[in-house]
Amino acid sequence: MSFRAQHLLGIEPLHPTEITTLLDLADQYANDPNSVRHRDVLAGMTQINMFFENSTRTQASFELAGKRLGADVMNMAMQASSLKKGETLIDTALTLNAMHPDLLVVRHPHSGAVDLLAQKVNGAVLNAGDGKHEHPTQALLDALTIRRAKGRIHRLSVAICGDVAHSRVARSNIMLLGKMENRIRLIAPPTLMPSGVAEFGCEVFHDMEEGLKDVDVVMMLRLQKERMDGGFIPSEREYYHRYGLDAAKLAHAKPDAIVMHPGPMNRGVEIDGTIADDINRSVIQTQVEMGVAVRMAAMDLLARNLRARRGAALEGVMV
Amino acid sequence: MSFRAQHLLGIEPLHPTEITTLLDLADQYANDPNSVRHRDVLAGMTQINMFFENSTRTQASFELAGKRLGADVMNMAMQASSLKKGETLIDTALTLNAMHPDLLVVRHPHSGAVDLLAQKVNGAVLNAGDGKHEHPTQALLDALTIRRAKGRIHRLSVAICGDVAHSRVARSNIMLLGKMENRIRLIAPPTLMPSGVAEFGCEVFHDMEEGLKDVDVVMMLRLQKERMDGGFIPSEREYYHRYGLDAAKLAHAKPDAIVMHPGPMNRGVEIDGTIADDINRSVIQTQVEMGVAVRMAAMDLLARNLRARRGAALEGVMV
Amino acid sequence: MSFRAQHLLGIEPLHPTEITTLLDLADQYANDPNSVRHRDVLAGMTQINMFFENSTRTQASFELAGKRLGADVMNMAMQASSLKKGETLIDTALTLNAMHPDLLVVRHPHSGAVDLLAQKVNGAVLNAGDGKHEHPTQALLDALTIRRAKGRIHRLSVAICGDVAHSRVARSNIMLLGKMENRIRLIAPPTLMPSGVAEFGCEVFHDMEEGLKDVDVVMMLRLQKERMDGGFIPSEREYYHRYGLDAAKLAHAKPDAIVMHPGPMNRGVEIDGTIADDINRSVIQTQVEMGVAVRMAAMDLLARNLRARRGAALEGVMV
Repeated sequence: MSFRAQHLLGIEPLHPTEITTLLDLADQYANDPNSVRHRDVLAGMTQINMFFENSTRTQASFELAGKRLGADVMNMAMQASSLKKGETLIDTALTLNAMHPDLLVVRHPHSGAVDLLAQKVNGAVLNAGDGKHEHPTQALLDALTIRRAKGRIHRLSVAICGDVAHSRVARSNIMLLGKMENRIRLIAPPTLMPSGVAEFGCEVFHDMEEGLKDVDVVMMLRLQKERMDGGFIPSEREYYHRYGLDAAKLAHAKPDAIVMHPGPMNRGVEIDGTIADDINRSVIQTQVEMGVAVRMAAMDLLARNLRARRGAALEGVMV
Repeated sequence: MSFRAQHLLGIEPLHPTEITTLLDLADQYANDPNSVRHRDVLAGMTQINMFFENSTRTQASFELAGKRLGADVMNMAMQASSLKKGETLIDTALTLNAMHPDLLVVRHPHSGAVDLLAQKVNGAVLNAGDGKHEHPTQALLDALTIRRAKGRIHRLSVAICGDVAHSRVARSNIMLLGKMENRIRLIAPPTLMPSGVAEFGCEVFHDMEEGLKDVDVVMMLRLQKERMDGGFIPSEREYYHRYGLDAAKLAHAKPDAIVMHPGPMNRGVEIDGTIADDINRSVIQTQVEMGVAVRMAAMDLLARNLRARRGAALEGVMV
Repeated sequence: MSFRAQHLLGIEPLHPTEITTLLDLADQYANDPNSVRHRDVLAGMTQINMFFENSTRTQASFELAGKRLGADVMNMAMQASSLKKGETLIDTALTLNAMHPDLLVVRHPHSGAVDLLAQKVNGAVLNAGDGKHEHPTQALLDALTIRRAKGRIHRLSVAICGDVAHSRVARSNIMLLGKMENRIRLIAPPTLMPSGVAEFGCEVFHDMEEGLKDVDVVMMLRLQKERMDGGFIPSEREYYHRYGLDAAKLAHAKPDAIVMHPGPMNRGVEIDGTIADDINRSVIQTQVEMGVAVRMAAMDLLARNLRARRGAALEGVMV
């Protein structure tokens, strides 16, 4: 087995073979997600979901994944407002750690908060999204969705369109698609395009028709208004006109290009509803489905490494 | 087995033999609700509770029922405010469906929303109350409570008293009691009596003493102030004086008449506290107890039909 | 077995041998909290957590404890605001009781509310904190932490420091430490010292250096501002200067004295952060760890008594 990570904090530290190992296992879970045979995988293990930022769908996906593998799953609703000081986040981490969770799923509005927390605990931490930094399980579920639709996850031309600047989904996807040797095109208005993306080998476009030309995959993003503090917020009508995905713009992509969106969608702003519902083009529901499978695979692999580490520690004591 | 429904959306579509089948099974669960022997009934199945309207007791009842049958139960707190457009409810339904839940328990403030959702998902949907439309498990638990107290659920005289106009509980009970050939008397002030009830074969009364005369069952309703938007809200004192159940009014019913209330009660408004607590007359706690049993039976039967449907689909593929 | 209680409502009604029995069992669970071998202890049993007051950490501790013992655990978020009348609390209790929970974990802002509720239900009730009255599992986890650090839980000198007046933690600890024949010193400003503590055999101090002299255990308390309704609220800077635990004050205790805090801490107000994090002195993380173990032991013992009571009732019926 070639997945050696202790935590899943981001795509950045993963080796391509680790990504492939994870996708291969997730593929198996996707074919049979809800079986009593999987109940032993995390039996006796405790999974705590700590969401400092609300997310009904991501939390539900992690909760289902854990329960289907037989873990004891506990949701803790954290109020970021009550955690103003950095030291208090650490106190929370230490308190949780003392309850011996095996798997900690954490979402936090601040970039880096999940990494900080991971340094203080003994279990495996899974980043469920931290600020504008990373959202690794989203990138992995996107990769699995693409691989199942296209038969491979390399040498594809992928357009990532919309609010790239505020998107951890974009950031994690850029990492993953780059590691797997795909061509990445970023399409965004100048105000929503981050600086320094060229260093990741991305091509930059400000025009949808140009950017979508001959791509295999059209990955739309959510407008992250809650992260545009003080900055420019585009009008929805103007945004849709220039950057919303409609049939005319999509016609510039390859005829068999697939359409993706991480959800929840703003229909008529980021994407035309007809395209979102077109089962010949849209794989948006498949993304949700692969989300559960990818989280099952990630927790399964991290739990194996956790058991191996504990076994080694025990042997160390005995020798 | 004669329970063939795919969903439990209301009492209206059920055949009397389906109701009897469900009550018979619920009776067995009521006699032994919390046994490790039942853990296999829903083992490996996922139950999602989606409550777009708060309800501590109904949600708890469904959660307990599912856990006692071994399901993986997940609660999703949905905010109706964030779901203004019809299309967004459907997006939510599609997203959930992609996570492959087997059982979806849904409460929604709008009549018909649960039926709409059921059309978009592959699992079995249970209506936990939609607007003023239906609340089928409440009618079933009321029926089971009556049957255990009276030995039968036909040819009884049942008075349904109070805010009939805004009550989905009344509506589902009228359906069920009518299908099982009982005599139904509705008692309400003219402002809280819906029009068109005569077509269901109900007798209408505006006076409690007259309406309660010689009934076997007195079913009180909750004042649904939250649904009286803009309409007439009666003063509590005046309401209690004319329509609150007290000893004097109850004396007009049969000497062995039972008293019911779906809860939570407004003591001193809908019902005198002494009567509510009188274990010789009140079956209000039994209603709660039967609620868990009826929900266990409903989920058990729906899960059997789901498995049968899936088995048939698999055979279709193999042939 | 010498633990005969039906409920765990407080430390006050417990016999010292009952405390020892519970600590001995908790010690075993502490050594191996998360084992699949424990899953049968509460299998088929329903645990309901009813928190009328928010408490992320205590609720999490009870939830983990129950899940690790195989119980079906259900959290009910109760809003104390909707429960203004005493009779409504009883209605809630009766409703819950009709769902046949085996274990009811209750936290309530009013002293005595948990006892009241316990009189109305058939299952075992665990008090998770009621007003300024008792918080028995906190005292038990403190006792276990002390016993593991000091090798005994008798003939120790223990200082309880800070907001004694508003603290149920202090009250339960005073009971427990007194029953086990320890010397108790209370240190607080006059405004935060309750009257009548002398009757429990406690020594009273208003000066930290004097009060901490030669103690084995320094137990800091949280400032319970939410319970200081209308009363004196000290300035944080002044409070820290006089009553916050720092190295200078701690130097008056025994050189091997341990430092405790029930959490969550106000660093720089009740305690200096360096001392809180000093693994040679602070046992604050151990307290959290022992919390899960103590709650496992308490629920295990109460469940045994519940089964014995039910078995006896059944025999009574059969004879």
